[in-house]
Amino acid sequence: MLDFRPIFLVTGILLLTLSAAMVLPALVDLAAGHDDWGVFLASSAFTMFVGGVMVLTNMSGSRRLVVRQAFLLTSMAWVAMPAFAALPFQFSELQLSYTDAFFEAMSGLTTTGSTVIVGLDTAPPGILLWRSLLQWLGGIGILVMAISILPMLQIGGMQLFRMEFAERIEKALPRAAQIAGSILFVYLLLTLFCAIAYWGLGMGPFDALNHAMTTMATGGFSTKDASIGYYDHAWIDVTSTLFMILGSLPFLLYVQALRGSWRPLLRDSQVYWFFGLLGGGVAILVVQLMVVEGWGFLLAMRHAAFNATSIMTGTGYATVDFSLWGSFALPVFFFLMFLGGCAGSTTCGLKVFRVQVLFETARNQLKRLLQPHGVFLSYYNGRPIPAGVSESVMSFFFLFISCFGLLAIGLAATGLDFLTATSAAATAISNVGPGLGPIVGPAGNFSSLTDTAKWLLSFGMLLGRLELFTILVLLAPSFWRQ
Amino acid sequence: MLDFRPIFLVTGILLLTLSAAMVLPALVDLAAGHDDWGVFLASSAFTMFVGGVMVLTNMSGSRRLVVRQAFLLTSMAWVAMPAFAALPFQFSELQLSYTDAFFEAMSGLTTTGSTVIVGLDTAPPGILLWRSLLQWLGGIGILVMAISILPMLQIGGMQLFRMEFAERIEKALPRAAQIAGSILFVYLLLTLFCAIAYWGLGMGPFDALNHAMTTMATGGFSTKDASIGYYDHAWIDVTSTLFMILGSLPFLLYVQALRGSWRPLLRDSQVYWFFGLLGGGVAILVVQLMVVEGWGFLLAMRHAAFNATSIMTGTGYATVDFSLWGSFALPVFFFLMFLGGCAGSTTCGLKVFRVQVLFETARNQLKRLLQPHGVFLSYYNGRPIPAGVSESVMSFFFLFISCFGLLAIGLAATGLDFLTATSAAATAISNVGPGLGPIVGPAGNFSSLTDTAKWLLSFGMLLGRLELFTILVLLAPSFWRQ
Repeated sequence: MLDFRPIFLVTGILLLTLSAAMVLPALVDLAAGHDDWGVFLASSAFTMFVGGVMVLTNMSGSRRLVVRQAFLLTSMAWVAMPAFAALPFQFSELQLSYTDAFFEAMSGLTTTGSTVIVGLDTAPPGILLWRSLLQWLGGIGILVMAISILPMLQIGGMQLFRMEFAERIEKALPRAAQIAGSILFVYLLLTLFCAIAYWGLGMGPFDALNHAMTTMATGGFSTKDASIGYYDHAWIDVTSTLFMILGSLPFLLYVQALRGSWRPLLRDSQVYWFFGLLGGGVAILVVQLMVVEGWGFLLAMRHAAFNATSIMTGTGYATVDFSLWGSFALPVFFFLMFLGGCAGSTTCGLKVFRVQVLFETARNQLKRLLQPHGVFLSYYNGRPIPAGVSESVMSFFFLFISCFGLLAIGLAATGLDFLTATSAAATAISNVGPGLGPIVGPAGNFSSLTDTAKWLLSFGMLLGRLELFTILVLLAPSFWRQ
Repeated sequence: MLDFRPIFLVTGILLLTLSAAMVLPALVDLAAGHDDWGVFLASSAFTMFVGGVMVLTNMSGSRRLVVRQAFLLTSMAWVAMPAFAALPFQFSELQLSYTDAFFEAMSGLTTTGSTVIVGLDTAPPGILLWRSLLQWLGGIGILVMAISILPMLQIGGMQLFRMEFAERIEKALPRAAQIAGSILFVYLLLTLFCAIAYWGLGMGPFDALNHAMTTMATGGFSTKDASIGYYDHAWIDVTSTLFMILGSLPFLLYVQALRGSWRPLLRDSQVYWFFGLLGGGVAILVVQLMVVEGWGFLLAMRHAAFNATSIMTGTGYATVDFSLWGSFALPVFFFLMFLGGCAGSTTCGLKVFRVQVLFETARNQLKRLLQPHGVFLSYYNGRPIPAGVSESVMSFFFLFISCFGLLAIGLAATGLDFLTATSAAATAISNVGPGLGPIVGPAGNFSSLTDTAKWLLSFGMLLGRLELFTILVLLAPSFWRQ
């Protein structure tokens, strides 16, 4: 029988953290003289009570987790957090239904950025801060997970980084906890720089801070309905593009760079591939905007770079309604959605290293066809890909496409058209934010969807954020049998 | 330096065969008193001349093919055949452009079934027979390739069948050529049965023969613009469904059954999975048609079974415009398109055995997550999947999705909307026939597309029909270096 006590204990601790975070929007609303401060405080108290009970009643368990407990803990934590984070949305002056509130909270914590709230420009500051805070905290959760839990669980080829990581620890740094600390320091520092840059370019301090949090988390929640497009400011677009990219590179390499070792960052093949894929997408869109739509180069470059970066990294900001960039742009954005950023960042999606492994494996297959008895090794970042990693990555890819397909069919069953259903499924499972088309596109909003669609999408976000396997493994009968 | 002589020799022989086949529509047009008989005879003479020259000038080469020659031969043959088969379309009274004629010929020989011809009901009989004949011959080409060349080339997991096949040869049958002969006999026999059934149910003898040829080839060309829907006859639909299914099962198993050994056919896991996947698709559509559209069970069952079978097997007939079956049906048809039938049949697409291998591999990955040191073998048809096959299949899947994506982006660049571009890309690469939506859907036609789009789609059909690798391997620099 599985020992649930450590699972409840950690979930309880996380809820206590969440409850502490709720105090911030309460203070902001209080300072702004807005009534919602009471809602945040009450939600905080309730969350603290539940979290506290969970902690107190489960302290007696073992502190060591076996693999099955780690899977269950990860899944449970990522369901419990949005379940409680939804409370302020439900009881604030927005008066969202619990479905909407949960959707918004899940979209926040998974750093997706799809929203059901209309009228952000006039929304109370507490709610706006809460949304940004959820994404920022979700970003921390992912960074910590990506360096601690996921490689241990060997999910979808993540073991590639366990070894790389272990090697780097031995060589350069004394303790894993210290690395986690350094990564969070970098995250905090970049957020601060980003906020100062936004502020310096003319955003108000509150908006600058909120956007900085959701930029670094590659989350995409904005304090404006028109997203970053509200400002229509070239340098804000450039700054935002830059920091979205910074949020999509492997944070571990920043830590090494801070310690004086820049080589790994400048030589990392994942970083090169990231820029290659992004550059390819931007180039196609620039040509499209200049040739077909007749834009000038600078304007085309600015909007293509911003929106392609936003979609590929899964941030989900928009400067314009790129759904209107002609039929050509739609499939480009659609396929960019799936890519994501680098492993060890806050991004979601397939992730660049998986594209590399898939490409290398396929290339070797082609070589093997010509020389059936030749021996071909696949390389990642200059080193041979260990046995099992290719298969793991390829299974991930198959499950990713399958889950996407089933989700799209499920969404279509709720009455959504083809473009809306497929792009909403893609945007959820890749944690991007907006979909395509008039309903869920950058100019649209998820509020008009049915409750069933919203729950399906929430599940899709969770599935994508936890790299599919963490959730799917719970569905295996053998998980519960032992 | 590669010896091109055996490649030209075989291509020449195939062109001579094609030239002989052109005599049949010439005779039919002559009997019907239609002027196009001259076009067919002239095309036949020209094709015979080119084929004859190729044969006569290349007889001195070695008769043994190395692997690289086999790849080049396969690709070249599948380009040369439609290039000449297009001639009658171009010079007949239809007066198609060469682009349209090549598209139609490629769609025929690859057993795709997309058409650019409007007004089939009044088209001359020679042209109608030529279209059906191309699909039927393409079907033979595939069956022969699937048991001879593809397993030898180890393409996308096809080596799974080389072993199975070799074992069966040893056990049951003396020679491979005899197997090929038996398979063609079965193909001919089933076509005959199908024609008699159609005829008995009220089709004219000419239409019955044409439809029988395109049913067994899972091709989908019809002699009517409204496809099988023209007859609006429940038993014709049922018969057609049955023979499309028969065309999608492994033909080798029929040969064994004919020799008294029914067990392999009744126990084959690929056959079970085929019915499982098809049944799942039909069930979803029946529920949709009954609950949302309010159809009766029998009517829903008839049209759901017919159209799902037609799309999943890549035949491409339609009885109604299933694009109008509500938003729910579109993604179901879209994902069915990718599946295809069994290996060793005339169908295209991913193929059922690959879905099985992908599923088994992913399932083992999940098991391995829970027991990192456990040993898990993947099974196909009761036997362990040999090393390398999983990786081969998964690379195929990755390349299939990538080629689909690039093709969809390319088609969108020609101005097609999202649904048209993505479904046309899928229908081409899976050799299905119709796409989705008003333009290329079952009620539409490919004639309105730009020439660029038609060439892209022709390339997509070729790519899909030759299991991607055969074409992609030619793009590898190492192919030409040695």
